[in-house]
Amino acid sequence: MKRFKASIIGGSGYGAAELIRRILIHPEVELVRVSSIDYIGEPLSAVHPHLEGRTDLRFEKLEPEDAAAGCDVVLLGLPHKVAANVVPRLLEKTQAKIVDLSGDFRLRDLAAYEQYYGGKHPAPDLLKGAAVYGLPELNRDAIRSARLVASPGCFATTIILGLLPLAKAGLLEGAVETVGITGSSGSGITPTATTHHPVRAQNLRTYKPLSHQHMPEISETLTAAGAKSFGIHFVPVSAPLTRGIFSTSFARVDASVTPERLAEAYAAAFEGERFVRRPKKRLPEVAAVSGSNYAEVGFELGPVEEGHRTVACFSAIDNLIKGGAGQGIQSMNLVLGLDEGLTLEDPGGYP
Amino acid sequence: MKRFKASIIGGSGYGAAELIRRILIHPEVELVRVSSIDYIGEPLSAVHPHLEGRTDLRFEKLEPEDAAAGCDVVLLGLPHKVAANVVPRLLEKTQAKIVDLSGDFRLRDLAAYEQYYGGKHPAPDLLKGAAVYGLPELNRDAIRSARLVASPGCFATTIILGLLPLAKAGLLEGAVETVGITGSSGSGITPTATTHHPVRAQNLRTYKPLSHQHMPEISETLTAAGAKSFGIHFVPVSAPLTRGIFSTSFARVDASVTPERLAEAYAAAFEGERFVRRPKKRLPEVAAVSGSNYAEVGFELGPVEEGHRTVACFSAIDNLIKGGAGQGIQSMNLVLGLDEGLTLEDPGGYP
Amino acid sequence: MKRFKASIIGGSGYGAAELIRRILIHPEVELVRVSSIDYIGEPLSAVHPHLEGRTDLRFEKLEPEDAAAGCDVVLLGLPHKVAANVVPRLLEKTQAKIVDLSGDFRLRDLAAYEQYYGGKHPAPDLLKGAAVYGLPELNRDAIRSARLVASPGCFATTIILGLLPLAKAGLLEGAVETVGITGSSGSGITPTATTHHPVRAQNLRTYKPLSHQHMPEISETLTAAGAKSFGIHFVPVSAPLTRGIFSTSFARVDASVTPERLAEAYAAAFEGERFVRRPKKRLPEVAAVSGSNYAEVGFELGPVEEGHRTVACFSAIDNLIKGGAGQGIQSMNLVLGLDEGLTLEDPGGYP
Amino acid sequence: MKRFKASIIGGSGYGAAELIRRILIHPEVELVRVSSIDYIGEPLSAVHPHLEGRTDLRFEKLEPEDAAAGCDVVLLGLPHKVAANVVPRLLEKTQAKIVDLSGDFRLRDLAAYEQYYGGKHPAPDLLKGAAVYGLPELNRDAIRSARLVASPGCFATTIILGLLPLAKAGLLEGAVETVGITGSSGSGITPTATTHHPVRAQNLRTYKPLSHQHMPEISETLTAAGAKSFGIHFVPVSAPLTRGIFSTSFARVDASVTPERLAEAYAAAFEGERFVRRPKKRLPEVAAVSGSNYAEVGFELGPVEEGHRTVACFSAIDNLIKGGAGQGIQSMNLVLGLDEGLTLEDPGGYP
Repeated sequence: MKRFKASIIGGSGYGAAELIRRILIHPEVELVRVSSIDYIGEPLSAVHPHLEGRTDLRFEKLEPEDAAAGCDVVLLGLPHKVAANVVPRLLEKTQAKIVDLSGDFRLRDLAAYEQYYGGKHPAPDLLKGAAVYGLPELNRDAIRSARLVASPGCFATTIILGLLPLAKAGLLEGAVETVGITGSSGSGITPTATTHHPVRAQNLRTYKPLSHQHMPEISETLTAAGAKSFGIHFVPVSAPLTRGIFSTSFARVDASVTPERLAEAYAAAFEGERFVRRPKKRLPEVAAVSGSNYAEVGFELGPVEEGHRTVACFSAIDNLIKGGAGQGIQSMNLVLGLDEGLTLEDPGGYP
Repeated sequence: MKRFKASIIGGSGYGAAELIRRILIHPEVELVRVSSIDYIGEPLSAVHPHLEGRTDLRFEKLEPEDAAAGCDVVLLGLPHKVAANVVPRLLEKTQAKIVDLSGDFRLRDLAAYEQYYGGKHPAPDLLKGAAVYGLPELNRDAIRSARLVASPGCFATTIILGLLPLAKAGLLEGAVETVGITGSSGSGITPTATTHHPVRAQNLRTYKPLSHQHMPEISETLTAAGAKSFGIHFVPVSAPLTRGIFSTSFARVDASVTPERLAEAYAAAFEGERFVRRPKKRLPEVAAVSGSNYAEVGFELGPVEEGHRTVACFSAIDNLIKGGAGQGIQSMNLVLGLDEGLTLEDPGGYP
Repeated sequence: MKRFKASIIGGSGYGAAELIRRILIHPEVELVRVSSIDYIGEPLSAVHPHLEGRTDLRFEKLEPEDAAAGCDVVLLGLPHKVAANVVPRLLEKTQAKIVDLSGDFRLRDLAAYEQYYGGKHPAPDLLKGAAVYGLPELNRDAIRSARLVASPGCFATTIILGLLPLAKAGLLEGAVETVGITGSSGSGITPTATTHHPVRAQNLRTYKPLSHQHMPEISETLTAAGAKSFGIHFVPVSAPLTRGIFSTSFARVDASVTPERLAEAYAAAFEGERFVRRPKKRLPEVAAVSGSNYAEVGFELGPVEEGHRTVACFSAIDNLIKGGAGQGIQSMNLVLGLDEGLTLEDPGGYP
Repeated sequence: MKRFKASIIGGSGYGAAELIRRILIHPEVELVRVSSIDYIGEPLSAVHPHLEGRTDLRFEKLEPEDAAAGCDVVLLGLPHKVAANVVPRLLEKTQAKIVDLSGDFRLRDLAAYEQYYGGKHPAPDLLKGAAVYGLPELNRDAIRSARLVASPGCFATTIILGLLPLAKAGLLEGAVETVGITGSSGSGITPTATTHHPVRAQNLRTYKPLSHQHMPEISETLTAAGAKSFGIHFVPVSAPLTRGIFSTSFARVDASVTPERLAEAYAAAFEGERFVRRPKKRLPEVAAVSGSNYAEVGFELGPVEEGHRTVACFSAIDNLIKGGAGQGIQSMNLVLGLDEGLTLEDPGGYP
């Protein structure tokens, strides 16, 4: 008999597939309900074939409060804007803890939200601190006591983890240039021209260069972590793999900064962190973390030039796990007072 | 404190990587030792990057009996021919149960072994029943009480599971034609011309057509399960994916056989089997089982022609899990008297 | 000044993209017009990005006879059923030669068309010999003098070329079992769930097993070439590559047939054929023909069993070139009295 | 009867495969000889399967001057360091024009060569202007009259073309940060751990960050084109595709620079260039140029920040064609006084 009950609102996407998988094998949390606006009455395996025979649950059309009924926690796999309409009702009409995978409550800056997500925010008052940004490496204690967790974006998680050591050490100041390369699962479950296999399988292209909606999320978070007058120029690139993000961020540090100093900053930033690795003999790579909740970080420091040095900060994650549902499960475990790593310790398959 | 101790002999390959991963997250079995002839003294993550920070174990150069010292079970990730030299020493000098992932003890027919694997068998006497063929769906009870388990081959597992219902129902007689399509991880960890990404990524080719070493393994097993005067014409094909095997076998059944009769045979053959799925609304596919220990089976029955009908039997697995180390873990759990599914219930990630 | 003028009806698909590419670099044929029901008024590069800056042509909405006006040849890149409505008007109202890439005029058996393509055929009378089946290796002379060429299907081309030597040598009799594995470009330009990169990139699955519409096309053609009481059990499989088809066909020949006899049959069947290769030291593979109009064929002969031997016939092509538009260009060259190989001699890039 | 004769020294690699393909279909140049230190006496198709049946040439072991005998041009597909030993002998003992695909003669700065390529240069005097850097968009006239052409590197070509408009317009000053993402064919024909399909197919990783040997080549070339106090921080990333490079370079321009001004600079830099495209309605992508000699360039201009704006410059090419052998053929055509585009006009297949 499991101690906690959970339900998922918006259960037909890839993020939800990963949430469902994790809860189905969770020792303490029972999945009691999955709501969706599509596939009503169909088994979960109709959309998630890997769940064939693993559960008798079917997609249900439910009001948010009905979806949450009797649950200790509700996880939202809804699109941006939709989540923002559901969360207020859950806060008002239920006692359930909420873990939201959407971008609707990650920002505190309403203007930034409206600029990058477009249109009005349905619940602007909630941006003023109602949610905790669900990055355990930065906000673990706050997450533990949070009612509402805004789980980080996939690019944002990757880029923030790569730069967090510099921010925490007071070494991150001014503009950063970042290229984040992502697999196709980040585009979601709906087929589009840019995820059509004949083209995607041999393509590299950018989209939303210098205007991706994760930019303000990254800036707010790193500034809160210690970055000064921080700004990011971010270019996302689509690559032909299914899972994984690799990011490269160029920052400028003082000429006096040595590799040893940077290594100390990385060690200090992630001391005791179970899911962030600093490989000793190699740089981060996607294949090492794909299929797991682990992130890998590393750096290369350039020569002294005009009083400063350029450091290239690297990070790699699985966009659907540490960059999405896995990190959401970390937050679910935390808000329920459970071991943060439940269902997430598996290093995943390789290759 | 875990109840059982295990060691791995031959720990540097992909099969061993999957064995190590499973035992590291196993609730009842502790990994105490990993031997190898390469990477002596290096951490496991030197070869298996996904294990970075997950274990302090290092590769050790050990005699078989030393590798097995104090262990309840030893798992072999050795190449063919090498395993055949290690197993006799383990049988003689230790009490440990043995799960061998190699092909050295799968056959009972010495002549077939020498024809398909080449050269002499180092321990021919052991072919006469010393090992139990580790397919739980066929030999579960025998595996439970076995000292030595010969874990099935990847193609063999796929093809056997697809035809097992016909064999058990007495519907499998005479020649079968099979095409098995495999991902590149089946070729192992050593780079070769046929796994070189620039070519493999856009290639389809056959190798060992009508002469693959899994043919006698398939024939012996299906004959033992009820097939009559069975013979297989097997064409393996390499495809550009990392994990997974999809097999199509053409068999001829009596004209009186109906789809309902075949559905009954499939249901009967796999009733209560946790890791074999018969999807109701679709045919088997690799993406649904990739990353998990599940197999999917299905069939399509052709029209009546000259007194018979042709049935196409389909099956899909992950070659490294159900087709390799995962199935080996199933046998390990069984020989230790544990729940067969420990560490294997995870449906895996999708996509 | 090029000697001939061509237009394309139905110019927005992958087949059309290959037709346009070839004609743009053709020394004797000028592309004067491309019609489409979509993208009217837009440059061809709006759909075919590789044509950026290569032509000023734009998609036009045109009646068939207007599309054909002043043209020596019209190439059809239309879907099945649509082509069948256009061809009669072109035959009636124009003098242009017609090369149709659709399946509408490949069959002579009306019942088979209605069974495999569904519904009624818009111009059933034309099935009675109005079209020449555009496989140069079988019908070269007839193509030269044809008014209407029905260009073969991608699977059909692959499978027929692999079995043609047996048919011509009188060695092909009775049932054949075939597995054809295809890349994703065969599914066309419209994104669907089965071509969605996150899933397709790691999937192997079958569709239309034992019921694919190319089956009657293969039977009619091989029977015309000499096969006796021929029948095919065909299982198509989708694989994660963009271009290429690899097919394996199992046939039974008399026990007296030797590898030498089969080699003679293959040599005789393709003597002087520029685009069909019989590699001496390896079996056919997709990577060797991908990006070119070449086909590769080969075989493996099994042991004597019960008075016969089983032969596995292999073939590989690029589905969009030899299996589609490239073969269509071969026919265009032939109907115009040109060198059959114009624009097709390029062996393509490797890897 | 073709007007010119060519031979290739170092014919067993991917670059050579592309050179051979082009010359085999070249209207004016005949391939008379291919030398190699491996595969002596074997047909070219033993290594290059797409050439099966296309030529009777075999690999020959030849002294450089013998390889060049009677040839108007010699193309070198040799590794770095090896080419540097062959070129002086060709210059001394033959009259043939030389197109070298290696990096041995691209730099003028001997110290940079020794730092980035390691060890001593075998012919340092030749670095002082003996070779013309084979980028037609920059050095067309010099190439026409060159005896020795040093064909550019793959990353260098991509990055230089993306930044050339800024350099020529006097807008490129100071440090640039670049991420270049490459397909696996750039690693060459020899299988390695980083091109092993099981891992490469789902990996993103960096190598030689901030220390890649193309950095001085890029700096020398862009400085010669007008860049001031230019420096590059370059991070190469490996991605799971076979062909293609996509590069993103971040440069800082004055706050007064507008998108229109940059568009003018791009238009001016590539006016009349047949192989450099500036798509109007999209940004550069690999799929549009893969399989062709075309490059695509584009940019995105950021907002005004502290007196400057950051511009992200994008470019995409096929690493083996415009980034390698195709560009080498452009130079071959130029040194022979032929139309630069012979055999290169094909827009390639899509997808």
